[in-house]
Amino acid sequence: MRKVFQAELHQIGEELIEISQLVSEAMQKATSAFESADTELAQEVIAADARIDFLQNDLDERAIDVLALQGPVASDLRMIVGALRMSASLERMGDLARHIAQLARLRFPDNVIPESIRPTFAEMAELDIAITAKVTELLETRNLELSNEVYAHNARINELHAGVFKAIAAADWDASSPTTVDVTLASRYFERFADHGVSVARKVTYLVTGEWQPSAPLN
Amino acid sequence: MRKVFQAELHQIGEELIEISQLVSEAMQKATSAFESADTELAQEVIAADARIDFLQNDLDERAIDVLALQGPVASDLRMIVGALRMSASLERMGDLARHIAQLARLRFPDNVIPESIRPTFAEMAELDIAITAKVTELLETRNLELSNEVYAHNARINELHAGVFKAIAAADWDASSPTTVDVTLASRYFERFADHGVSVARKVTYLVTGEWQPSAPLN
Repeated sequence: MRKVFQAELHQIGEELIEISQLVSEAMQKATSAFESADTELAQEVIAADARIDFLQNDLDERAIDVLALQGPVASDLRMIVGALRMSASLERMGDLARHIAQLARLRFPDNVIPESIRPTFAEMAELDIAITAKVTELLETRNLELSNEVYAHNARINELHAGVFKAIAAADWDASSPTTVDVTLASRYFERFADHGVSVARKVTYLVTGEWQPSAPLN
Repeated sequence: MRKVFQAELHQIGEELIEISQLVSEAMQKATSAFESADTELAQEVIAADARIDFLQNDLDERAIDVLALQGPVASDLRMIVGALRMSASLERMGDLARHIAQLARLRFPDNVIPESIRPTFAEMAELDIAITAKVTELLETRNLELSNEVYAHNARINELHAGVFKAIAAADWDASSPTTVDVTLASRYFERFADHGVSVARKVTYLVTGEWQPSAPLN
């Protein structure tokens, strides 16, 4: 019984890592599609999101089965409840990567973002990709140094996100209103993506240390 | 043991209803603050969100304790896992009501939304308030007719949300770029709020019928 249980816990952990890898891949492709107005790559991201949703459901069902059949307690129980929550965050990150790809497809052959503000978006994209890579590694290794790096990336993304709104409010902003809408939504997607990465990192940290780190509410 | 268990399940259900009521109140006040540029009311919503966060944590801890101590199975287990997920959705709805209040406070004494598009926002606000009232009643009564009404309200909100972007793209849209940003974000908050209401309604439906209703992915 104990052996089966350990195997199932291991399987849940592996599935979480797999979802995280798929999200990382989705975000890499989505930002590439977004930056180079590549509609085929965007379409790939949109199609691949169904796989993430499927795996999340699968993981959740598996976790509920383990709860029902094994009646885990203490740290095992917290790990399973944590996995349910992390899978929800990862699934949402997949959705946000899809939204970014959808914006790229919607505006094709145009680029979503005006040239003047592309460096800001390039940095946000790079940081979001770094966050997914670190979240995946964190799930694999539980090296909490990675959590701190995720928090730092998120703080920088929040600055960049605020910078986007400053740029839009500046006298020299001459983009059309629909472009302003796109820029606003895209910036929000990148920023929310990072927030969910922070949620996952916090949960891993909590599982390892047993200490919840209260912090300012996320947006 | 069984009696204690039933009392704890009941308590979790009651706490969920309480959170839902607080979210409903928050959304009523937030939209009122938003529509009438009432900064004091906005401040009230922002302050009250901490209580929602606290209750969510409390409910989650209680649910985990019940899992650990009672080892529930079958429908009781699904009810508890469902409660953990519903509390997350409700907590997020509270955040979105807070964001709407924050926009109102940020632009005070101005109104966030240009006059031409206020009727659209008034209808979204009304529907979101109706959604929270129906979600609360659904949690209390498990009358699934209410779920269908929540889905219908959400469908209408999606139309209104699309209508906002059409209005912004129209030739006669003459608002400033920062106002366009505010309108975009506000519309997104109202729309996401409804999505989370749908998530809660779907989970209640699932708990009652045992059938998951697959549907188009939410935004």
